[in-house]
Amino acid sequence: MKVGHYLDTEPVQELPGVVKRVVIGADDGAPNFCMRVFDVEPGSSTPSHSHPWEHELFVLSGRGVAVGEKGETEIAKDYAIYVAPNEHHCFVNKGNEVLRLICVIPLTT
Amino acid sequence: MKVGHYLDTEPVQELPGVVKRVVIGADDGAPNFCMRVFDVEPGSSTPSHSHPWEHELFVLSGRGVAVGEKGETEIAKDYAIYVAPNEHHCFVNKGNEVLRLICVIPLTT
Repeated sequence: MKVGHYLDTEPVQELPGVVKRVVIGADDGAPNFCMRVFDVEPGSSTPSHSHPWEHELFVLSGRGVAVGEKGETEIAKDYAIYVAPNEHHCFVNKGNEVLRLICVIPLTT
Repeated sequence: MKVGHYLDTEPVQELPGVVKRVVIGADDGAPNFCMRVFDVEPGSSTPSHSHPWEHELFVLSGRGVAVGEKGETEIAKDYAIYVAPNEHHCFVNKGNEVLRLICVIPLTT
C-alpha cells in the first residue's frame, strides 16, 4: 500500500498554466491504470486533442468547461467526466481559482 | 463525453454506514476501468478484505485510516492511496464527518 498527500508528488509543467502530478502509476507497481492530478490556472486549458485511450476525470476544485465534440459543458467541484477513446476534448479554466482535476488513464497508452 | 455531478448518480448502500456511487463504469462505455465514490460514515469502515485487483483511491473529504498488511496509516482530504492486487485492506472513518473516497478499479474484476 502506498499512501501520500498528492502535493508530495513532484509536479511536472505539462504546458504553460498546466501542472501535472502522477500520484499513482507504473512506478508504484500499478498494473492497469494511472492516476494523475492536474492544476489548470485561470484562463488556461489542457491540450485540445484526441487519442485512442479514454479519460475518467473528477473535479476537485475550481470551475470551467469540458469541451467535447458536441460543444461545451460547465464543470465544477464534484463533477465526474468520462471522455471516450478518440473523442476530441479539452478542459478550460473559466474561473478565478485553480481548476484541479483527477484524470485516470490506462497504462497501455 | 459524459459530464455530471457525482450526486446525480444513484447511491447504493454497500453495507451499513457505507454508500457507493458508480460515477463512471461499463454502462457509460468505459472499456478498462470504473470510478466509484464511497461515503463512509463516522465510525464505519469499508469491508476488510483482499482481491486479485488493485485499487487507486483519492480522499475527497474527511479523515480516517487506511489499514493495510503493514498496519494503519492516517488519511485525510487530498491523500492518494494505492492498494496492490491481493493486499488485504480497509478504510476506517475516524473523524466526525463523512469520509469520502474516489476508488478506481479495473473493469475485468
